[in-house]
Amino acid sequence: MPPSEFELIERYFSRLGAARADVALGVGDDAAVVEMPAGQLLVAAIDTLVEGVHFPRGSPPSSIGHRALAVNLSDLAAMGAEPAWALLALTMPEARADWLAAFAAGFEALARAHGVALIGGDTTSGPLTISVQVLGFAPQGAVLRRSGGRAGDAVYVSGWPGEAAEGLALELAGTAPVTAAGAVGDDDARSLRLRFLFPAPRVALGRALRGAASACIDVSDGLLADAGKLARASGCGVELDAGLLPLSPALLARCGRARAIERALCGGDDYELCFTVPPERAAALEARLAAAGHLVRRIGVLTAGGTVVARDGGTVIEVSSRGFDHFAR
Amino acid sequence: MPPSEFELIERYFSRLGAARADVALGVGDDAAVVEMPAGQLLVAAIDTLVEGVHFPRGSPPSSIGHRALAVNLSDLAAMGAEPAWALLALTMPEARADWLAAFAAGFEALARAHGVALIGGDTTSGPLTISVQVLGFAPQGAVLRRSGGRAGDAVYVSGWPGEAAEGLALELAGTAPVTAAGAVGDDDARSLRLRFLFPAPRVALGRALRGAASACIDVSDGLLADAGKLARASGCGVELDAGLLPLSPALLARCGRARAIERALCGGDDYELCFTVPPERAAALEARLAAAGHLVRRIGVLTAGGTVVARDGGTVIEVSSRGFDHFAR
Repeated sequence: MPPSEFELIERYFSRLGAARADVALGVGDDAAVVEMPAGQLLVAAIDTLVEGVHFPRGSPPSSIGHRALAVNLSDLAAMGAEPAWALLALTMPEARADWLAAFAAGFEALARAHGVALIGGDTTSGPLTISVQVLGFAPQGAVLRRSGGRAGDAVYVSGWPGEAAEGLALELAGTAPVTAAGAVGDDDARSLRLRFLFPAPRVALGRALRGAASACIDVSDGLLADAGKLARASGCGVELDAGLLPLSPALLARCGRARAIERALCGGDDYELCFTVPPERAAALEARLAAAGHLVRRIGVLTAGGTVVARDGGTVIEVSSRGFDHFAR
Repeated sequence: MPPSEFELIERYFSRLGAARADVALGVGDDAAVVEMPAGQLLVAAIDTLVEGVHFPRGSPPSSIGHRALAVNLSDLAAMGAEPAWALLALTMPEARADWLAAFAAGFEALARAHGVALIGGDTTSGPLTISVQVLGFAPQGAVLRRSGGRAGDAVYVSGWPGEAAEGLALELAGTAPVTAAGAVGDDDARSLRLRFLFPAPRVALGRALRGAASACIDVSDGLLADAGKLARASGCGVELDAGLLPLSPALLARCGRARAIERALCGGDDYELCFTVPPERAAALEARLAAAGHLVRRIGVLTAGGTVVARDGGTVIEVSSRGFDHFAR
């Protein structure tokens, strides 16, 4: 007889992630109970990954476990919040111990790296779908929002946008498996694929932006689309300069400049932060972030009016304001 | 062009449920932000409904919206917690406005009845799967657990266990649709089907059990299985007396006594509370609950040792300790 649902949950999910003293009751009762730190706001995000929609069928389970948590940590990063606890709703066609072990290992490593404890969940039978809910906190007044930008604010992005989209294209091309532990193929392709499979949520950067950024969003649906969402929430437009985009050497080597720009502007799954800074604060913030080892680049400006554009020299790249859309594709 | 994901979310989910002054930032940013009341513990549950697993294909969307929230409110009820906020992860094959409107209406009515605000969510494309996460709170020391029972404690159940299982059987038999607003068929069948489609989570009862019940669990997988889980968590066995089971007139009329007992002991989807009370407190608690209009019935006792049994006169009904199991069925 295969292990029961309860045995599997017990085996893989009962003590996943960091051990936290504020967890009064973790996995195993009807609900979890935690102690909130006094004087902090509670910050909560939920995001779902569906096989065949958000990751290719047959993706490494360690990557799926990592990404299911990472996309939520990225949401908390965009709020400047400190993540603390997670709940996992895992729907899968069959409970296979090897798959669960690898999934749990991918989730675990990222959870520990960010001090997050898995405190509850639900395992059900059905098409592979993973919803993770992350809870964290932030002091009153420190929360970053999409809506705080003003026309004239400088627009920044972290990391190397576009790498994940090229990495996903390589994954879909069906080359040999790559994992965090080992890979085949040239180094550029490997590093791009790892950026899709194991994105690094910018939690420390989000906290460093408290009190400095005027608005922030995480880049999941494409830089231009997400910068547009930030701009709209702030009652502004946005103009990005393709010449200022941070295009990684690996991306340029694989794609050339034109496609690299397209990947960086329109590719999804970056899980970088896009944020705005009033011009008078920009130089000091740049210096502080550089000193702390955060890679960020000024790429444009919030504008009066509602247009969302990217310029590349004399060319204007204009995209729909609707951004990435799961249903209308 | 059909409405985009963002437009649909905006239309149906941006202001769902109760208006709460403690919501600092609701649907529409990267994460939601709420104010926790001082001195309370945070209580969190997540539960998933999958089409074809947890409800029949083609179920009324208002029922699906209701149940997705109800199963989580039931988890919080079992902890004695007060629900406050919910997040919704909705995966669906296509975004149909009429389906979404009815789903949202079902969710909304129950959310308002319990003072719950929808503060965040994620809508994705894929097989119909709904994960809801409910957050609430409870004072230090008031949280009910599964593990507090002792041998000799009286075992209680609320409501009419077994009605929902018979209601589901009627739903699966493919008779004409029934909704909260209207129905066809005889009154007994209608009331049983409504018990499956629109279960009433026992939130007020859970709070009334604070400081009085020694342990509590919600009945989702069948009364005997869930009583067994409570007993195991408490280091006990449990013995239920089938002759004491509250068998509803509607269930008896449809099923006769033998099948009614089977439904009540082994049928799922009740969302009643099963709880234990030290014998010296039982009479006072029964009187207090009756005065407050809570329907509960003493049905058995926690025992030393690990067996989970139900007796019906001289007959012993013994079931596997594994209970309902999504994967090993």
